[in-house]
Amino acid sequence: MNGAHALIHTLVDSGVDTCFMNPGTSEMHFVAALDDVPAMHSVLALFEGVATGAADGHARMTGRPAATLLHLGPGLGNGLANLHNARRAFTPLVNIVGDHATYHKQYDAQLESDIETVARNVSSFVRRSAKPDEVGGDASDAVAAAYGPPGQVATLVLPADVSWSDGATPTPPRAPATPEPVDDGIVKQVVEALHSGEPAALFIGGRACRGPLLDAAAAIASATGAKLLCETFPARLERGAGRPPVERLAYLAELAAQQLDGLRHLVLVGAKSPVSFFAYPDKPSDLVPDGCRVHALAGPGHDPTGVLEALVDALGADPAAAPRQGAARPDRPTGALTAQAACAAVGALLPEGAIVSDEGNTSGLFASGFSAGAPPHDWLCLTGGAIGQGLPVAVGAAIACRDRRVVALEADGSALYTVQSWWTMARESLDVTTVLLNNRSYAILNMELGRVGAASGPRAKEMLDLSHPDLDFVSLARGMGLTASRATTADELVEALERSLATPGPSVVEAIVPSLV
Amino acid sequence: MNGAHALIHTLVDSGVDTCFMNPGTSEMHFVAALDDVPAMHSVLALFEGVATGAADGHARMTGRPAATLLHLGPGLGNGLANLHNARRAFTPLVNIVGDHATYHKQYDAQLESDIETVARNVSSFVRRSAKPDEVGGDASDAVAAAYGPPGQVATLVLPADVSWSDGATPTPPRAPATPEPVDDGIVKQVVEALHSGEPAALFIGGRACRGPLLDAAAAIASATGAKLLCETFPARLERGAGRPPVERLAYLAELAAQQLDGLRHLVLVGAKSPVSFFAYPDKPSDLVPDGCRVHALAGPGHDPTGVLEALVDALGADPAAAPRQGAARPDRPTGALTAQAACAAVGALLPEGAIVSDEGNTSGLFASGFSAGAPPHDWLCLTGGAIGQGLPVAVGAAIACRDRRVVALEADGSALYTVQSWWTMARESLDVTTVLLNNRSYAILNMELGRVGAASGPRAKEMLDLSHPDLDFVSLARGMGLTASRATTADELVEALERSLATPGPSVVEAIVPSLV
Repeated sequence: MNGAHALIHTLVDSGVDTCFMNPGTSEMHFVAALDDVPAMHSVLALFEGVATGAADGHARMTGRPAATLLHLGPGLGNGLANLHNARRAFTPLVNIVGDHATYHKQYDAQLESDIETVARNVSSFVRRSAKPDEVGGDASDAVAAAYGPPGQVATLVLPADVSWSDGATPTPPRAPATPEPVDDGIVKQVVEALHSGEPAALFIGGRACRGPLLDAAAAIASATGAKLLCETFPARLERGAGRPPVERLAYLAELAAQQLDGLRHLVLVGAKSPVSFFAYPDKPSDLVPDGCRVHALAGPGHDPTGVLEALVDALGADPAAAPRQGAARPDRPTGALTAQAACAAVGALLPEGAIVSDEGNTSGLFASGFSAGAPPHDWLCLTGGAIGQGLPVAVGAAIACRDRRVVALEADGSALYTVQSWWTMARESLDVTTVLLNNRSYAILNMELGRVGAASGPRAKEMLDLSHPDLDFVSLARGMGLTASRATTADELVEALERSLATPGPSVVEAIVPSLV
Repeated sequence: MNGAHALIHTLVDSGVDTCFMNPGTSEMHFVAALDDVPAMHSVLALFEGVATGAADGHARMTGRPAATLLHLGPGLGNGLANLHNARRAFTPLVNIVGDHATYHKQYDAQLESDIETVARNVSSFVRRSAKPDEVGGDASDAVAAAYGPPGQVATLVLPADVSWSDGATPTPPRAPATPEPVDDGIVKQVVEALHSGEPAALFIGGRACRGPLLDAAAAIASATGAKLLCETFPARLERGAGRPPVERLAYLAELAAQQLDGLRHLVLVGAKSPVSFFAYPDKPSDLVPDGCRVHALAGPGHDPTGVLEALVDALGADPAAAPRQGAARPDRPTGALTAQAACAAVGALLPEGAIVSDEGNTSGLFASGFSAGAPPHDWLCLTGGAIGQGLPVAVGAAIACRDRRVVALEADGSALYTVQSWWTMARESLDVTTVLLNNRSYAILNMELGRVGAASGPRAKEMLDLSHPDLDFVSLARGMGLTASRATTADELVEALERSLATPGPSVVEAIVPSLV
């Protein structure tokens, strides 16, 4: 058995059954081996950033790593931004990066580069398989490393001759490392803080944003009068009618400061202590207010099951009795199409079980609020701030959950980084509705230009402007094989959105909205 | 004066007058400073790979570095593949990568990453400006480093507070390092080899592919009966009627072996010794035939002026009498549209002074032959093998040479990596004709699948197929604001190409061609 076969068998045996790929010559034996291992689902992307973002989205929904297959250092480079986002999401992910044959590297051929250097930027685990009989074990180790805890990106470099040579065997799955045990001291400290009568908040992130852990956090907050806040960009937040309502910390530091104002205790549950996204002249980077004590109950990316159970017990909280969001939807908007109306349309129509991939940026600002009481759904965020994540994550989520509708809430500027995602949606017949919020500018940068105190002359503004020529996303979507329509009124948007949500397969609704900035 | 102002002034004073950018919040003060330094031409790209590839194309035509402005580690990552190509082209290039404010880095905010690690993969010079009063000197050093010799990528990391804080001053240009002196010994050795009567070839690359150096190399070859070969993917080859004819080494090792067969001396002039692009089982990586001695007269990327002059003198060669390509064009093709016909159309119509950005891959295979006797033009190649370079390089070349027509000969698969280039062409009203060769597959990989000896079952082939859905490049181009048309016969292609070449501004001609593979 050659290295490629052993690798794919090992991945599948370890629960990694989907590979998002953009292969080249050095990966041809991996590609050829796909025909012999039907349990591995392979998905072609036209750009590596689509593959890495899709692997992230897939894992956010399944809890298992997906694999990518990338072509040497440049292919890894093209996928790097969404690997950064995956790293920030604590997503388990296994990159397979093909390389030149071991004996070919000495010739410094055109595509030769230092793959490990690039990989280390985003990967906690980086290894190069030197011989076919090492591939199986290396792949098992990579999958175990990806699981963490916390979940992380693992990169395995696969030289072409290791892939094509015989002498390899699959390796059984290896157990991931066990989480660190609960520290009783911190639980006791938090119980005291929450019983102190002083203003307190639970600040949740990662796994605490869903399922029984979210119920537990909500019950603890409710039992003690603490606020329940979550990180600004959770990897996956379960929300909607019947689920505990959670207040997300605002992106704008000024608004976040208001949400945190007066707190004396901030309990971190799967989240890191809140900091400003960027630095701004004469504004604090650390958002924790003076006099507020931070209690790090569980780190970001870690499974806080143990500590939450201990807290529930110690406080006598009842997860079954946690507060629940009531069902409520905005009216279907009519008249002028604004960013607010577009978000209201999403809130009015979001189907039960939907998965929202949110990269709506400024135009999508109101979507979260308008959908708070919609039927239960998942909300996936831009975890690392590297735009171009929304459409790829939608691809991966849709492949992971074929029975659910994915809504990609996407800003015009961000869409253009990985717009090739649409083609994969069409090829795979994915049930994805893209709501493309087109305000014809990098609106968030127009806002930031003022916030950082920079002047804004005409040449500066020109660099933030996406008009002349206007981007026509209907043409772009059709060029990639999707049906698409444009809405210039709220009524048109509602009609197009209803049609898209009711139609199997992917489609794009372009909403022309004025910029909020 | 703040750091941003000093930086831009220093760049302009050093001859770096164009900046291709995709900025974010941490770069806002750089963007704001553009209004105060009108000598710096700023060009917006919708994706960083467009910016880095355009800077490469610009420098290939001007000989001076262009700058990029990129947003932290993920922005650099998105630009990495074309920086790899620029590195392989020995292109002088200055990346400015914005970063968080110095005091903000400790908070590990969402976009925090190790920028230097990524930059080192492609940059010989990596520096971080720690204080405003260092920015000017750092920028001067970066430009000097970019000039080399050889030309290289220099990356300067600019923290947001260093950019926005006062206390900076522009720094005058610094002289680049001087090239190493000519080694008389190697010149004498080469003279002996070329006078030996044994079969010999000059293998040229880099600067030896144009201007007086090309004339000198051709005269030397002609005077001694040596073959004149050039590297497979030269950064910029001057060719066409009236210029010395040069045979390019083939991409396929089998064909390259035929070109080199029987040689006893291979004289490297600005090129490295030829190696196979990839390794193939049971085939040699080193293409130099047994019994052939390699004479490294000048390394890749270095200016071979001195050694060529010494050789011309020693051999009594006359550059003015170097062989010249005669004027000849193929007939305008008619009938069925094949890859061969598409290339014939380019050869028949290529205007004088055109700049061809060649990423036509398999479908473009015959373009070089059909245009050999076309009016004088430049030919820019995929130097590093990381596809997605052709359209961005066309952007940069067109901005560098506003009075010349750029023809981007582009394959369907490759186009999709950096298709956002079209928008920048439209915004900047660039005279670029894209001939999009659409064979609906990664044809080169279908060929490579067999060449590496891999099986090719239906699932493998599916991963190399770009149909279902078919990509409609006319829609994609229109979506980005360009005029576009589709040709399905050779006659339609000729008509569309003539129209495009005669019309100011960018346009796209999609040629539907059967795959050669």
